[in-house]
Amino acid sequence: MFRTHTCGELRLANVGEEVILTGWVQRLRDKGGMLWIDLRDRYGITQLSLDEGITATELMQQARSLGREFVIQATGKVIERHSKNDKIPTGDIELQVTKIEVLNPAKLPPFLIEDETDGGDDLRMRYRYLDLRRTPVRRNLELRHRMMRETRNYLDGLNFIEVETPYLIKSTPEGARDFVVPSRMNAGEFYALPQSPQTFKQLLMVSGFDKYFQIVKCFRDEDLRADRQPEFTQIDCEMSFVQQEDILNTFEGFIKHLFAQVKDVNIEKLPRMTYADAMRLYGSDKPDTRFGMQFVELNPLVKNKGFKVFDDAELVVGICAEGAASYTRKQLDELIDFVKRPQIGATGLVYARVNEDGSVKSSVDKFYSPEDLQEWANALNAKPGDLILILAGGADKTRKALNELRLEMGTRLGLRDKNVFSPLWVVDFPLLEWDEEAQRYHAMHHPFTSPKPEDLHLIESNPGAIRANAYDMVINGVEVGGGSIRIYDRTLQSQMFSLLGFTKEEAEAQFGFLMNAFEYGAPPHGGIAFGFDRLCSLFGGSDSIRDYIAFPKNNSGRDVMIDAPAPISEAQLDELHINMKNLPKG
Amino acid sequence: MFRTHTCGELRLANVGEEVILTGWVQRLRDKGGMLWIDLRDRYGITQLSLDEGITATELMQQARSLGREFVIQATGKVIERHSKNDKIPTGDIELQVTKIEVLNPAKLPPFLIEDETDGGDDLRMRYRYLDLRRTPVRRNLELRHRMMRETRNYLDGLNFIEVETPYLIKSTPEGARDFVVPSRMNAGEFYALPQSPQTFKQLLMVSGFDKYFQIVKCFRDEDLRADRQPEFTQIDCEMSFVQQEDILNTFEGFIKHLFAQVKDVNIEKLPRMTYADAMRLYGSDKPDTRFGMQFVELNPLVKNKGFKVFDDAELVVGICAEGAASYTRKQLDELIDFVKRPQIGATGLVYARVNEDGSVKSSVDKFYSPEDLQEWANALNAKPGDLILILAGGADKTRKALNELRLEMGTRLGLRDKNVFSPLWVVDFPLLEWDEEAQRYHAMHHPFTSPKPEDLHLIESNPGAIRANAYDMVINGVEVGGGSIRIYDRTLQSQMFSLLGFTKEEAEAQFGFLMNAFEYGAPPHGGIAFGFDRLCSLFGGSDSIRDYIAFPKNNSGRDVMIDAPAPISEAQLDELHINMKNLPKG
Repeated sequence: MFRTHTCGELRLANVGEEVILTGWVQRLRDKGGMLWIDLRDRYGITQLSLDEGITATELMQQARSLGREFVIQATGKVIERHSKNDKIPTGDIELQVTKIEVLNPAKLPPFLIEDETDGGDDLRMRYRYLDLRRTPVRRNLELRHRMMRETRNYLDGLNFIEVETPYLIKSTPEGARDFVVPSRMNAGEFYALPQSPQTFKQLLMVSGFDKYFQIVKCFRDEDLRADRQPEFTQIDCEMSFVQQEDILNTFEGFIKHLFAQVKDVNIEKLPRMTYADAMRLYGSDKPDTRFGMQFVELNPLVKNKGFKVFDDAELVVGICAEGAASYTRKQLDELIDFVKRPQIGATGLVYARVNEDGSVKSSVDKFYSPEDLQEWANALNAKPGDLILILAGGADKTRKALNELRLEMGTRLGLRDKNVFSPLWVVDFPLLEWDEEAQRYHAMHHPFTSPKPEDLHLIESNPGAIRANAYDMVINGVEVGGGSIRIYDRTLQSQMFSLLGFTKEEAEAQFGFLMNAFEYGAPPHGGIAFGFDRLCSLFGGSDSIRDYIAFPKNNSGRDVMIDAPAPISEAQLDELHINMKNLPKG
Repeated sequence: MFRTHTCGELRLANVGEEVILTGWVQRLRDKGGMLWIDLRDRYGITQLSLDEGITATELMQQARSLGREFVIQATGKVIERHSKNDKIPTGDIELQVTKIEVLNPAKLPPFLIEDETDGGDDLRMRYRYLDLRRTPVRRNLELRHRMMRETRNYLDGLNFIEVETPYLIKSTPEGARDFVVPSRMNAGEFYALPQSPQTFKQLLMVSGFDKYFQIVKCFRDEDLRADRQPEFTQIDCEMSFVQQEDILNTFEGFIKHLFAQVKDVNIEKLPRMTYADAMRLYGSDKPDTRFGMQFVELNPLVKNKGFKVFDDAELVVGICAEGAASYTRKQLDELIDFVKRPQIGATGLVYARVNEDGSVKSSVDKFYSPEDLQEWANALNAKPGDLILILAGGADKTRKALNELRLEMGTRLGLRDKNVFSPLWVVDFPLLEWDEEAQRYHAMHHPFTSPKPEDLHLIESNPGAIRANAYDMVINGVEVGGGSIRIYDRTLQSQMFSLLGFTKEEAEAQFGFLMNAFEYGAPPHGGIAFGFDRLCSLFGGSDSIRDYIAFPKNNSGRDVMIDAPAPISEAQLDELHINMKNLPKG
């Protein structure tokens, strides 16, 4: 038996007991003949004490030779502390050490194992096993574990059954790029790793499983951005004999349960917003509704006054930043620079201050009268002290840019508190989106999403206007989940593939098994999937999903700790019937 | 709202209620102007009734046109049945139907969707989504779900934290063959899919996570046997600051919890048997201890009596089959044929009957006196009516063959009841096994298993005799789990790799990250992994793990339902920098 207690366990009630603790040396303090050691494990920190006056000389010496992160076993008696530490649960006691055994020494870690560390990103990733020792990182994974558990508790309580679907499946051309796995036994053929268990969960509905879920790894071979990982975790759910309303209610209950159990936060009924409204009012299908600052379209007020930029614009649209009238020239210049960044793409920014006396002063005063500007202020409901910000140009691009500016202003004005949570449903997404480059439609959600029956008549005349039975759950500007009611009729599914540019043969080769299944008694069904990594980071108050993944990959898809990927042997290549080709030189 | 109740829910207390049910048409009976439909969903079966006397003619006609497996919505009133069916929970009532809506028609299924089906294996795999509709198959997956839940409940209750480890890792030459994934972003390099999260869970111990578990998919590209799948699920566990005793106690508790919660079976304290004893008494490291029939070595009793087969044999060993003395010549011939099969490999079988009068009659009477045979009977504790079966030859091969014969006799004598569970620990496995072909040692468990400290002195002189801190949990002759106390010292780990024939450079390239981690404060640790598919099949009373996997692959590693693996496009190959080569013709 290595230990009798953990380092987070001892209290005043244990005073007098002989105990054995194990853990890592967090810190040593040597002062006036006294030596204190903070001993750390997953459960907490307990102070060990040694006193030249009573401790054997050899033990004193041994203890003084310990280094940071040594793994030790300490035996001793629990005593009450002279100066208590009310910051830690074990702060009332300490261990008067009678014996120390070094279980494993440690080299000096390459960075500080403290809440605030001096290690850079790269170094911490290379030594991820040391970074994971730091309390904030450990807490992230503990949060993730709790969220997993509460997810299962909720769904299990509703009779959902967790079914594992296969990881070695078939590559499909639709959607993102697949990771593939060459087959040794089936020469010339490949498995693909699933981007989601979509078709399998639909087949489980055809099988009558009625309510399915799975917390499952998914894979996408895409160029990585800060918040993307080649492998990620999804909470994947599907239900039979449901309409959209049933799914929304079930998973509204889910998110309320998670917030209540994990964060002790009470969530009100989720508002619902159509995709059209979200785009009109926020310029985004994932609006951050922690704050208002909704878009107000100004075309009728600003046109034909001689200001060419507005006259030529498809859309002139503004927001009102409360209390920002005091912004300095420098701050306004920052905003102008912000909107002109290539990734935002606006050509300029018009602003107007509402003064304390109610008068309005704008950057385009030579084109607009004080009365004109007053109308703007009225339209935007701007009060004295507020700042009006206006962008103009092509409608889609301008909305997108103003969305970014709105979020920037929200951040600057402190309206995006990480401890405030504002979830909502965005509904009525378009079924299709037009791909200019490929000159064809893509499925906005995926090819299995059902069109709204009342829009089906547009299928020949104006397919782009068809709305889908699709919905996203959005929290604080982050899309945490999305889903749809599915097609369960072979004919409609064929039509959908044809709309997406599949030939009959392609559709049959790729998804024949699913369309066949629809002919043997498929129930109406629908579902949703949540991005679990993102949900964890949102609950944890971080922008980076990497902080919530035990062993993440970097932006080149590398695990720098184990150094993967890596070359494999010629013998392995031979067995898999493959050759390398076109390798970049060097 | 598609339904007000499920098909497993209605009782006498609901009589008089207007309800809506949805489900699949299981069966129609049309007799004397009455029509009954069994409507099925995941939750049960409810009888619908229509009566020419009171049901509208159109509805009667519509109902008569329904086929098996049609998905329908039925509205009606709950009434008490005339002739109750006490075999199903809803058997007291039926639904007097007033409206039927066909939600989806169904083609005639290619096999019967009944508990006993007429579909062959191949057909049922091709239409797995229909096979999953059958109650026994659905129950298997429900059992699996319950076992997953209870696994998590138990481990969670002991403060284990579930951590997801990566699926895209690095290929290692040790152990079975890896599935690999070519990297697009890192040309010429490959990820490997994990055979187990072994190194990651050890790193989590170095990180101080203390108690880890994960229910996780693992992958092995091996030629498949009946009970192997290329992807399989493991309950993977690791603990810090533990000795073997702590792990055995923790997971003895686990299996007891599972049996109690899932099967309502009370398991006694698990016996422990050394590997040496298991081989000596059962000829197997996974003995089926539901029955005795232990091996008795007979060398001293049988040698030097002129019977060359025994005189030349390294080992003569027998078992006593209780009550089998009445075996006919034909039955004995079957046993002789059995042991002579190539996969068993014995050259012959000696038998001896103990007659009712206590005399012994053997197949080698001309070499042995009645007194000799009496001695055999005494040694084997054979009573009147018993049959003694003896094999002879090289020790290892003979033990292996007698193990098979013992299991065969256990089956024939009805001693292997699927509802009896006999778990035990097999301990003290050898650290290494000699590979004749490669002329080098392999790790019997894996290279991270620690040797017993008291055997370490053999490391130069006789490494094959070193015992490991390794243990297997065996139930009914099936190895359901195995694990070990790990090496946590860099030097010892290096020595181990060198014993296994790694050069220093190879060890560093493959496992440098782990050996480095051991230098930064690694705690003593150990763990265990359970084969979850096999555990489910054992609990479910089946020999085939496939019955407990939603979408299994066949013996060629194919998913015949979705037809994977499959060729990928030239464009995909190009992006991955690979060419196919040496493809078999045709």
